[in-house]
Amino acid sequence: MAEENHKQVSVAEFFEKNRHLLGFNNPSKALLTSVKEAVDNSLDACEDANILPDIEVKIQELKKGKYRMIVEDNGPGLNEKVLQKAFGSLLFGSKFRSIGGKQGRGQQGIGISAVILYGQLTTGKPAKITSRTLKDKEAREYTMHINVKTNEPDVIASEVKTWKREHGTRVEVEMEGKYVGTKQSPYEFIKQTAVVNPHASIIYTDPEGKKHKFPRVVDKLPRKAKELKPHPSGVEFGLFKRMSKDTKARNVKSFLTKDFDKVGGGTAKTILGTAKVDGQTMPKLLSDDQLHEIHEAIKTTKIMNPSTDCLSPIGADALAKSLESEYELDFVKAVSRNPTVYRGFPFQVEVAIGYGGELDTEGSARLNRFSNKVPLLYEEGSCALTKGLKSVTWKSYGLHNSSGSMPTGPAVIVIHIASTWVPFTSESKAAVSNYPAISKEIKLSIQEAGRALHLYVRKQRKAGLEEEKRQKFIGYSGEVAGAVAKLISKDSYKLKKEDLEKSVSKIQKSLLKTAETMYASGASLADVEEEEDE
Amino acid sequence: MAEENHKQVSVAEFFEKNRHLLGFNNPSKALLTSVKEAVDNSLDACEDANILPDIEVKIQELKKGKYRMIVEDNGPGLNEKVLQKAFGSLLFGSKFRSIGGKQGRGQQGIGISAVILYGQLTTGKPAKITSRTLKDKEAREYTMHINVKTNEPDVIASEVKTWKREHGTRVEVEMEGKYVGTKQSPYEFIKQTAVVNPHASIIYTDPEGKKHKFPRVVDKLPRKAKELKPHPSGVEFGLFKRMSKDTKARNVKSFLTKDFDKVGGGTAKTILGTAKVDGQTMPKLLSDDQLHEIHEAIKTTKIMNPSTDCLSPIGADALAKSLESEYELDFVKAVSRNPTVYRGFPFQVEVAIGYGGELDTEGSARLNRFSNKVPLLYEEGSCALTKGLKSVTWKSYGLHNSSGSMPTGPAVIVIHIASTWVPFTSESKAAVSNYPAISKEIKLSIQEAGRALHLYVRKQRKAGLEEEKRQKFIGYSGEVAGAVAKLISKDSYKLKKEDLEKSVSKIQKSLLKTAETMYASGASLADVEEEEDE
Repeated sequence: MAEENHKQVSVAEFFEKNRHLLGFNNPSKALLTSVKEAVDNSLDACEDANILPDIEVKIQELKKGKYRMIVEDNGPGLNEKVLQKAFGSLLFGSKFRSIGGKQGRGQQGIGISAVILYGQLTTGKPAKITSRTLKDKEAREYTMHINVKTNEPDVIASEVKTWKREHGTRVEVEMEGKYVGTKQSPYEFIKQTAVVNPHASIIYTDPEGKKHKFPRVVDKLPRKAKELKPHPSGVEFGLFKRMSKDTKARNVKSFLTKDFDKVGGGTAKTILGTAKVDGQTMPKLLSDDQLHEIHEAIKTTKIMNPSTDCLSPIGADALAKSLESEYELDFVKAVSRNPTVYRGFPFQVEVAIGYGGELDTEGSARLNRFSNKVPLLYEEGSCALTKGLKSVTWKSYGLHNSSGSMPTGPAVIVIHIASTWVPFTSESKAAVSNYPAISKEIKLSIQEAGRALHLYVRKQRKAGLEEEKRQKFIGYSGEVAGAVAKLISKDSYKLKKEDLEKSVSKIQKSLLKTAETMYASGASLADVEEEEDE
Repeated sequence: MAEENHKQVSVAEFFEKNRHLLGFNNPSKALLTSVKEAVDNSLDACEDANILPDIEVKIQELKKGKYRMIVEDNGPGLNEKVLQKAFGSLLFGSKFRSIGGKQGRGQQGIGISAVILYGQLTTGKPAKITSRTLKDKEAREYTMHINVKTNEPDVIASEVKTWKREHGTRVEVEMEGKYVGTKQSPYEFIKQTAVVNPHASIIYTDPEGKKHKFPRVVDKLPRKAKELKPHPSGVEFGLFKRMSKDTKARNVKSFLTKDFDKVGGGTAKTILGTAKVDGQTMPKLLSDDQLHEIHEAIKTTKIMNPSTDCLSPIGADALAKSLESEYELDFVKAVSRNPTVYRGFPFQVEVAIGYGGELDTEGSARLNRFSNKVPLLYEEGSCALTKGLKSVTWKSYGLHNSSGSMPTGPAVIVIHIASTWVPFTSESKAAVSNYPAISKEIKLSIQEAGRALHLYVRKQRKAGLEEEKRQKFIGYSGEVAGAVAKLISKDSYKLKKEDLEKSVSKIQKSLLKTAETMYASGASLADVEEEEDE
């Protein structure tokens, strides 16, 4: 390593150079990322303040390649100091809570300020942020830059503004962009967001001035995720050691019970017993070897899964309904797995599979990815959710795929991961990193939903075959009845033609009725035939 | 946005939580990433100091899932202050140079300290860094942690160490890991690194104690990349504006000629003429409108491509040779494009295609990706190099692929991007982001190499068909000759059997000779046949 130039640059300068890390690598993605960051922020702010979100998004074309994005919400607003910091600098972890954490959309805290950074980089124009808190008598608009060298807000003007909202925040940024109408458009993002956030009302005005309304469907806020201590499973040794040095607990037993989730007195005793460490030892005095013993003992001790209330999942029912509201389907199965942990962070996977109906029987199945209720529209290939889907041998679950590729068939699959800390593959938060524990849960949930799909598809196929047989049976029933009639009537040769026909018709009716009953009860002709074979 | 908890965390704490961003999401990838960061550092250090690199890499298994990595080089070493800063804190852009920059492997400056962070997170153990500069009489070993809260080095011990090397740096880190022998192994990384860095000697000792030697092939350092001013093409308006405020130039004309690459007096005059701005204006006094006019004028003015000496490409010949050294091939074509720019950063794409020989005729072609001479072994799917490869319609270039997928056939394709600033998709530097200008160059270079492949394959196919025809011709030559003999000898029926046979044999020989000459001259039977048809 050379000695030259070991100078440090600000986080803002780093990301100005690396704007692709934040999702601004091309004009259409940049526009989408901006909408995403602003909407995520608005939803989080409203939910944190127990307010049902009313959000308006506008994208205006200023000239070719130049757009203005306006996003406003009825959130609690921000006071001047917090506002300037939140919008005027890129702060790592400004939304970090404890080591454990709490589920939220924007977890990094560099999202919305990155939008402002991108805007000023591509247009040289300042952003306009308006805010009115519940206490404020009026709204105030701040015109501001980010000082890239110092990573600090640079407020050019601040003035009172008349605003229809009684409280909330409004962001207005001009930027280079490209408006697309594809699967990766702002419209698609907002539509999918509305689907999994039925408690939010979103109005979106596109560049052509067309208003798209996504009204509120549920008048209830989702269960609020609770802030949580870290779960001991998967907490890495280095972090465990650091926690033991920083703890306020006086002895190691209370360190375990107080600083971690799901460790009661009994569990702590078991852990310490296995580790052969006295529970009264002061945590700071534990040797590295003792810490290792405890850390190993945690792995072998049965500890309850994390509390479900640290997460705010969509829920199997809501997930199924949202799919049905979007597509005409013949079959839907949704699965919401129990929360589990990776590296001490609780997470939960939900999967829904829709099948048949209006879906195209040719080509790949559709995949809609979500993380903490935010649609993921980019970087499908590198996402653990996609990889999980591809890793399944779909032949066993009602669809088909060649090894390691997307399943084909008339299916739409929704995968949602909720976590206090979703491990994204980059700061652009477009794809989930494939930690082994996460990949495993994704696969298990897909398989669980897949089994139901398989049953359905098999039944459909069987029903198809049965129907074929039945039609044949009906087609031949006249002849069969005739033969039977001859068999049962010893004096058939004496019978008049009309009588024989009457008899045949009777037998045929009876045969068809039996067949109907048989089908309705689910017994198959095949079963009957097998029995008859014996 | 909620007001709660807008606290900032250190870069180290952010990446401790987000270690996957740096390439540490699973144990096998973590081990590879560590080797990669350390080797990149060593190569950069040696080259910067004009030293032919002698690098040793050791991976030792301590117990199941725990490894020790040791990487040492004969670089210039580091003094105490720089060493502690470089290894003991995660600094954004510690390797940043000017806005323009200079090609190097580790461009972010958070690589090697991230390895140390990962080691202490997973094992709780400090790292050991040894260094001896050219001035030092002895080597010194520092045992150190990174203080995650403050992102500062925490040196536990520092002592003199006997070391065989007269100068250099040695890094020793214990970590959780998993050793794999696949395409993504440390062995593969080192092998590929050796191939494209023929001036380096690398000795690698694997966990089983086996030594793999990759000797130096070329006794000459690669051309040193020069530090460069930014190229005006693609510099974004926001940055352009900032540069105009920060410049030391007294007037806008000298601002353009002194602060940018490839802008001479004439070019500056053209730009300012188009923009209708007086060249004597003080840069600080330019209005936003004037700046916009100049920025627009830059886009429409023809400016020379960036100097080639800011980049250190592998070179078409070396690339072809390296492919041939790795595989038995029937055909190789390498292309080294001229440097161009994205967002003002110069870059250059090189492509080599190898075909036939020992390569498997079934299945996908192989792809070896490199950026600034560093092999990229992970995240193939999300990399612009892969996407470029898939975007080509391979039917026109001698291979086959279904739309948007990898080509199939007996081919190996090497793609290298050299840049003063490679835009990676994440800090793990495993995949290149698809900026439009970059994607375009990748596609063009693949197509250029592909055209040569197509010619070769077509010739081979034709030759195959020709050979078939020829064999047929030879097979029938006896009969043809007989027929001809009969035709030309009016008195054939009078001829003795022996004479006829002699005559036929003569004619046959003459026919075959004619055919040989025809094939050798490249004329095809088809051509002859067509001519005969007329």
